[in-house]
Amino acid sequence: MIDYNFASDYTEGALPQIIERLADTNLLQTEGYGTDRFSGEARDKIRQAAACPGALVQFLVGGTQTNATVIDAVLRSWQGVVACQSGHIAVHEAGAVEFGGHKVLTLPACDGKLRAEDVDALCRAHENNETKDHEVEPGMVYISQPTELGTLYSRKELEDLSRVCRKWGLPLYADGARLAYALACPENDVSLEDMAHLCDVFYIGGTKCGALFGEAVVCRDPALMPHFFTIMKQHGALLAKGRLLGIMFDTLFTEGLYEEAGRNAIETARRLKEILKGCSLPFVIDSPTNQIFVTMPNDLLEKVREFTLLTVWGPHDETHTDVRFVTSWATKMETVEAFGKKLTELYKS
Amino acid sequence: MIDYNFASDYTEGALPQIIERLADTNLLQTEGYGTDRFSGEARDKIRQAAACPGALVQFLVGGTQTNATVIDAVLRSWQGVVACQSGHIAVHEAGAVEFGGHKVLTLPACDGKLRAEDVDALCRAHENNETKDHEVEPGMVYISQPTELGTLYSRKELEDLSRVCRKWGLPLYADGARLAYALACPENDVSLEDMAHLCDVFYIGGTKCGALFGEAVVCRDPALMPHFFTIMKQHGALLAKGRLLGIMFDTLFTEGLYEEAGRNAIETARRLKEILKGCSLPFVIDSPTNQIFVTMPNDLLEKVREFTLLTVWGPHDETHTDVRFVTSWATKMETVEAFGKKLTELYKS
Amino acid sequence: MIDYNFASDYTEGALPQIIERLADTNLLQTEGYGTDRFSGEARDKIRQAAACPGALVQFLVGGTQTNATVIDAVLRSWQGVVACQSGHIAVHEAGAVEFGGHKVLTLPACDGKLRAEDVDALCRAHENNETKDHEVEPGMVYISQPTELGTLYSRKELEDLSRVCRKWGLPLYADGARLAYALACPENDVSLEDMAHLCDVFYIGGTKCGALFGEAVVCRDPALMPHFFTIMKQHGALLAKGRLLGIMFDTLFTEGLYEEAGRNAIETARRLKEILKGCSLPFVIDSPTNQIFVTMPNDLLEKVREFTLLTVWGPHDETHTDVRFVTSWATKMETVEAFGKKLTELYKS
Amino acid sequence: MIDYNFASDYTEGALPQIIERLADTNLLQTEGYGTDRFSGEARDKIRQAAACPGALVQFLVGGTQTNATVIDAVLRSWQGVVACQSGHIAVHEAGAVEFGGHKVLTLPACDGKLRAEDVDALCRAHENNETKDHEVEPGMVYISQPTELGTLYSRKELEDLSRVCRKWGLPLYADGARLAYALACPENDVSLEDMAHLCDVFYIGGTKCGALFGEAVVCRDPALMPHFFTIMKQHGALLAKGRLLGIMFDTLFTEGLYEEAGRNAIETARRLKEILKGCSLPFVIDSPTNQIFVTMPNDLLEKVREFTLLTVWGPHDETHTDVRFVTSWATKMETVEAFGKKLTELYKS
Repeated sequence: MIDYNFASDYTEGALPQIIERLADTNLLQTEGYGTDRFSGEARDKIRQAAACPGALVQFLVGGTQTNATVIDAVLRSWQGVVACQSGHIAVHEAGAVEFGGHKVLTLPACDGKLRAEDVDALCRAHENNETKDHEVEPGMVYISQPTELGTLYSRKELEDLSRVCRKWGLPLYADGARLAYALACPENDVSLEDMAHLCDVFYIGGTKCGALFGEAVVCRDPALMPHFFTIMKQHGALLAKGRLLGIMFDTLFTEGLYEEAGRNAIETARRLKEILKGCSLPFVIDSPTNQIFVTMPNDLLEKVREFTLLTVWGPHDETHTDVRFVTSWATKMETVEAFGKKLTELYKS
Repeated sequence: MIDYNFASDYTEGALPQIIERLADTNLLQTEGYGTDRFSGEARDKIRQAAACPGALVQFLVGGTQTNATVIDAVLRSWQGVVACQSGHIAVHEAGAVEFGGHKVLTLPACDGKLRAEDVDALCRAHENNETKDHEVEPGMVYISQPTELGTLYSRKELEDLSRVCRKWGLPLYADGARLAYALACPENDVSLEDMAHLCDVFYIGGTKCGALFGEAVVCRDPALMPHFFTIMKQHGALLAKGRLLGIMFDTLFTEGLYEEAGRNAIETARRLKEILKGCSLPFVIDSPTNQIFVTMPNDLLEKVREFTLLTVWGPHDETHTDVRFVTSWATKMETVEAFGKKLTELYKS
Repeated sequence: MIDYNFASDYTEGALPQIIERLADTNLLQTEGYGTDRFSGEARDKIRQAAACPGALVQFLVGGTQTNATVIDAVLRSWQGVVACQSGHIAVHEAGAVEFGGHKVLTLPACDGKLRAEDVDALCRAHENNETKDHEVEPGMVYISQPTELGTLYSRKELEDLSRVCRKWGLPLYADGARLAYALACPENDVSLEDMAHLCDVFYIGGTKCGALFGEAVVCRDPALMPHFFTIMKQHGALLAKGRLLGIMFDTLFTEGLYEEAGRNAIETARRLKEILKGCSLPFVIDSPTNQIFVTMPNDLLEKVREFTLLTVWGPHDETHTDVRFVTSWATKMETVEAFGKKLTELYKS
Repeated sequence: MIDYNFASDYTEGALPQIIERLADTNLLQTEGYGTDRFSGEARDKIRQAAACPGALVQFLVGGTQTNATVIDAVLRSWQGVVACQSGHIAVHEAGAVEFGGHKVLTLPACDGKLRAEDVDALCRAHENNETKDHEVEPGMVYISQPTELGTLYSRKELEDLSRVCRKWGLPLYADGARLAYALACPENDVSLEDMAHLCDVFYIGGTKCGALFGEAVVCRDPALMPHFFTIMKQHGALLAKGRLLGIMFDTLFTEGLYEEAGRNAIETARRLKEILKGCSLPFVIDSPTNQIFVTMPNDLLEKVREFTLLTVWGPHDETHTDVRFVTSWATKMETVEAFGKKLTELYKS
């Protein structure tokens, strides 16, 4: 019987405050498509939190949808988007970027991160390429914060990337599906304000960070994405009852709820890491956020899966497997402890 | 001050039962992407209600998204979708079908409806066209029930269309964004079961019919849309917390809630029609469902808009305008009466 | 046995001067992709003939390819192209524009032509449409000169269209697949220079007007189509041996060959019209160029088709059919006379 | 002054026999779009040469166009095409495959070739991937013979690839832009018949192998690419005067002209390789066909470029550059010798 679920950060519904707020506002009448007052207030709070008074803020439903829509809005038809090989858009979105007609130009990842120097080299090589007009032009850069491996760009790394991008005229876009978990991390030195000013577009993830669903796109200079509303509609990404997204983000950005949601995941992840370490399970990567990657002996894994949901990341060697544990805003510390107790027993036996 | 809002059927949140259910299940953990048990139960209830035990049932978030995804799943690259000129996909979806690479082949509408004979003539003309290989092949037929003008296909009309479609090998797809309002209508003789058997694919609208959002695609023969899950992902149409859709449709298909939601809209629309008639406002079209189209003198309209939200459909003549009133699952009879009182006063003065 | 072929204007190869020139230059070595000196010279001659010294001139292979590539280069993702219902892109190009992600917004045709007032009304309606952000924005206008029905825009009509397009900020694009036949027509008062200045982009047709193949795109302001070379490559529209196109257009624009090619088609068409009139065959439309549309009794048609290739345009009534005869740069006057003799005999018997 | 041009195999027009044949047939009238008798005869000759009596044979204009059109015809919307990282479609086609909505799934190249074991591993990994429904499905495999680096798949290698592809149900497609140069190569053991039977689709390159332009697609089982004619039209890849392609391929497949064209390139390449070797220029790769890759000291390169066109492939190290020499059907042995004399003088000085 499955007692523990560390498979992802979208296994529950939403923060109780959000459910309450949806219930309280349920029968109020509003206009549609995000033109309602809740969405207006949420936009204002986000602009303020990001210190971007003139930013375009739009709410979409999910991450793949947001990535595909933003990328399509920023790129021109002859351009592609640069991402690292492990980037979500490069692997896990069923070709949504290509469906929109654009190539993902991949670069090697270093701890799940794109390096400024690699982007610079790619752009220089393109510039110097005698047949560059026969190739896809790098048109923007995609990163995620935290990355798909739970790692974080430092402020210095983000500044470097931002500088290289501006040097080459490439908009920098950050996928913040798990942004709350970066912001709440003690190791993190990149603020929401930094995201807004070092990136050209980024999104604040709601789906994995306490909302029922929803991602808030923030674009410092609205001229970068003209007619974004219509492009959202064209992508099927415009929610009729946009108020739901407005209400959820308004709630998340009231009284520090978004940060609080993040903190819980980080604290429970920290404890889980101690437990895993105590069982001599080596970490695949040193991730400071809510995703934990460890290598497990296959026989132990088999027993653990009898009572736990986790994600198999891939085979490590013939007798070991790399697996991922994820905590979230909803993970209870007592659940972690109870799981820890069972795991430690198994380990000792 | 705006006291009355008849602008659309998505001005409120959701049926109270749905909010309650979301609250009750909020902290349960489930798997993602619609593989959870709530979604499973909702699928079973829908299959049973539609008498389609082997049907593919998938839940998407919104109408434009559903149309674009289904059409892309059914058509091959050289085909287009047949719709009437006033069809939602032909006008109001910002080119989402074309974004997916397909042409909308339009035919004249008769009371908002596509006629079987017109589809037959189009197919015959294509078949006999000496240069047909230079043209887009009709690959499926799109209708909506009720239509964009609130009218209904009769069982006879739907059977005729279905027969013509099968004769030419064209899958018939029905957009049921407001299906509850058709099903609840005394004039309607097309059951959910009929929809499932006369159409090849259709969707049961949730967004406008009592859910927070969501549309349930029903496809009698799953072989018609292979890899639909991946196509959903590619379209950004796969909700991470698919359980939300499952919970909502499970609730709607329990104890006749979906029908009940429909009935309220029909009853309030009926009363509103009496009021409008009493004020000598002529109907633009005879719609039996929850959308009411009347012609209003411009000076009256100006006054009405001071306290009412409604939709301007377009100019009628120099001194009159065609407008649309919409009721929904959430419209209260006392609101209709109060509005009626104010309108009648204006009319008499 | 088929003795006469009036089915199209691409039934032969090319003007003898073109074949000679290809033979003479055959073993010269040049660079590829239109960067050779022949293409350079052809560009200069076209810029001079069109009085457009700064124009972008690029050579593509065929008409559908040119339309799809230009339209994709001019439009942004949220826009569509306005055309009349009988426009080539709307009907005869297998959905190539939609394959590129764009909708064709159709307007009624008047003698195969788009009317300035209809474009103006469409743009005004879009501007005033309260839900315009949910619809495809008109992004450019497509016409053909001569039209698909062989008719001509007068200078006045083209000026009116151009004025309306500039008023609304819409680039005007003219498909000149048969432009030679317009230019050579005594009824025509639109010069090549007018085309270049009243339109924003147009193409000079080679395939149907004396070349083996090829269309020359002329765009007064190159900023309208940034990265057009790469977009051509992306569309598979960049010929490796671009020199072939350069040589052919250089030849066509030397010593008035393009006009001469046009004149032959017009003169032979004129004679053919006299013959058809002499046989009491009514014209479907009054076309001054090289396409002639007449209504034929079915029994006569059957006999004519025994020795003639022509195009069946469609049924006229139960006993008559509308057919099209086409002459070209290659049509010999004696062929027309010989056909005329046989037709007249049939008519008299 | 440029005396020698080894920049590519499309620097001249066409084999004299082809020019003659075009001249001879120039004023004959034929039907359009490849339905003419010349195209019919060319198809028959190709089917016979490839021992594929039931094959679909269609003629397109250029390589990028052919790749994009075939790939779009074979893949379904949720699939991508597997290619090696140096594959033409992966790098040099300006994103034409992505423009059609499909991802290129790249694998490492070994001497420019895809290895059967890598394709097998990719497919197995996809099959075993728990989240495979969120990823692009491998839908076909793309190779080129010879490869972009001038290397050849052996019969054994092609059989292995073919076996793996069939095991996983993936159509195997070979880009034969330079196929004549493979077929004429003594080291080659893959016949045209082998190509047709080990691949599911391939194309016989004309543009680089003696024709003015043109590529002949051969598909053993026409059911693999339904409605290919219309897909060609949609891609702007249907030549109005298809007879030109028919005439050229008919000529190439008469009296062994295609093989002969190939042989000249191989013989001149062989001699050029001796000369380069004599000047101690190391080969970057051991290519048996008409592309020769050598590393040159930068100061020598500078001098050589004063009188020679060649292709800079990329920097080798700080003082050396990798360059490509290409011979073709048109390269004269005396040109090679004259160039050799000048190069040897430079080398000795």
